[in-house]
Amino acid sequence: MYELWYWPSIPGRGEFPRLALEAGGIPYRDMAREAGDDGYAALSRDLGITRDDPPFAPPYLIAGDMVIGQAANILLFLGETHGLAPSDAAGRLWANQCQLTIADMVAEAHDTHHPVSVSAYYEDQTAEAKRRAEDFRTNRIPKFLTWFERILTRRGDWLTGDHWSYADLSLFQLVEGLSFAFPRRMARVARDTPRVLALRDAVRGLPELRDYLASDRRLPFSDGIFRHYPELDGE
Amino acid sequence: MYELWYWPSIPGRGEFPRLALEAGGIPYRDMAREAGDDGYAALSRDLGITRDDPPFAPPYLIAGDMVIGQAANILLFLGETHGLAPSDAAGRLWANQCQLTIADMVAEAHDTHHPVSVSAYYEDQTAEAKRRAEDFRTNRIPKFLTWFERILTRRGDWLTGDHWSYADLSLFQLVEGLSFAFPRRMARVARDTPRVLALRDAVRGLPELRDYLASDRRLPFSDGIFRHYPELDGE
Repeated sequence: MYELWYWPSIPGRGEFPRLALEAGGIPYRDMAREAGDDGYAALSRDLGITRDDPPFAPPYLIAGDMVIGQAANILLFLGETHGLAPSDAAGRLWANQCQLTIADMVAEAHDTHHPVSVSAYYEDQTAEAKRRAEDFRTNRIPKFLTWFERILTRRGDWLTGDHWSYADLSLFQLVEGLSFAFPRRMARVARDTPRVLALRDAVRGLPELRDYLASDRRLPFSDGIFRHYPELDGE
Repeated sequence: MYELWYWPSIPGRGEFPRLALEAGGIPYRDMAREAGDDGYAALSRDLGITRDDPPFAPPYLIAGDMVIGQAANILLFLGETHGLAPSDAAGRLWANQCQLTIADMVAEAHDTHHPVSVSAYYEDQTAEAKRRAEDFRTNRIPKFLTWFERILTRRGDWLTGDHWSYADLSLFQLVEGLSFAFPRRMARVARDTPRVLALRDAVRGLPELRDYLASDRRLPFSDGIFRHYPELDGE
């Protein structure tokens, strides 16, 4: 059985492979969360194990002899192994391309509240955060979401084909995170990206995810990558 | 023949697929650079073409019917198609994992001089840049390069096997860029990461790259992702 390792208290980047595992009905153990109050320490211990190919950072998936790091790489593996993406070369690469673009936006969303240093407190970089967040709201959110809107305009309901793929699950998670962090801005952007919002709703309603999304395994957003600071959300 | 599209005046993210194409001896056209003084306009026009799957941003590679965006995705394709990475599942995913980690560091290196907005001038974000660069120099450069050093300590000369792969070419390019942008800091870090520096030297000396690296096709670093501002390089 697969073992997924990620920080236990936030959805973060771990939620992207987790959604694919859940929607795919793929058995896995969520190791740090299983460890309960000891989750952080358990993850730190596991990161300290001497391995030929240590992961740079969580999330990582242990699959037999493989330790697969980088969320997009885990999804590439799950997509190929469990049919969660098209299997032809063009479709496989396209799903990966969508995922990498989502990952870029996730990183930029994170940097709105930590534009100076990931190891310093938000409170010590609020001035910089306000400038970065303004640019993100004004330029980056429309640029990224309009791109996805264009894709869906031509392709239909899903990013990669007639059925959801892991890239659709990830776009759902991205929009959920942005809506949590930037509710005012996203309410405006929604008018220009109806297909992106419809995809978000469609994933939210997937029978494959119903139990998971209603369970306490589905972690709420809080102080992870997507954070709601009203002062960063603009007018 | 493949068509590579990227901004014509900087190595940037285009240099990662370009190095793989060159070292692999793979015929390709470097479209914006072929257009000479019209390169930027040619790329802008090409980006404006209506396509089913438009790229989000350069670089992208046109390969038959496919328009492959995201540097790591282009490399995944080239690696599989031209044997520039291991062909077994574990090796293929590992090369991709290394590449994605390199891509993360490239993005962070860019943000040292543009921590607030990619669309604003450096001169309008120098205060923020100094803070971000300090964190990058102090925390991020050692964290990333030490990870690669650990890999090479266990695996040997190359990241993914007995022979170079596209990930090694990319690590070379990353170290070259960091050495251009942060020469003082890199001179210090070099003492702790001899294997990473040896890999850089080994790629620099590859017979497959000799002609390319000596040619004017190899663009120097200037005002792209890796920039040398002495005030960002610390003491």
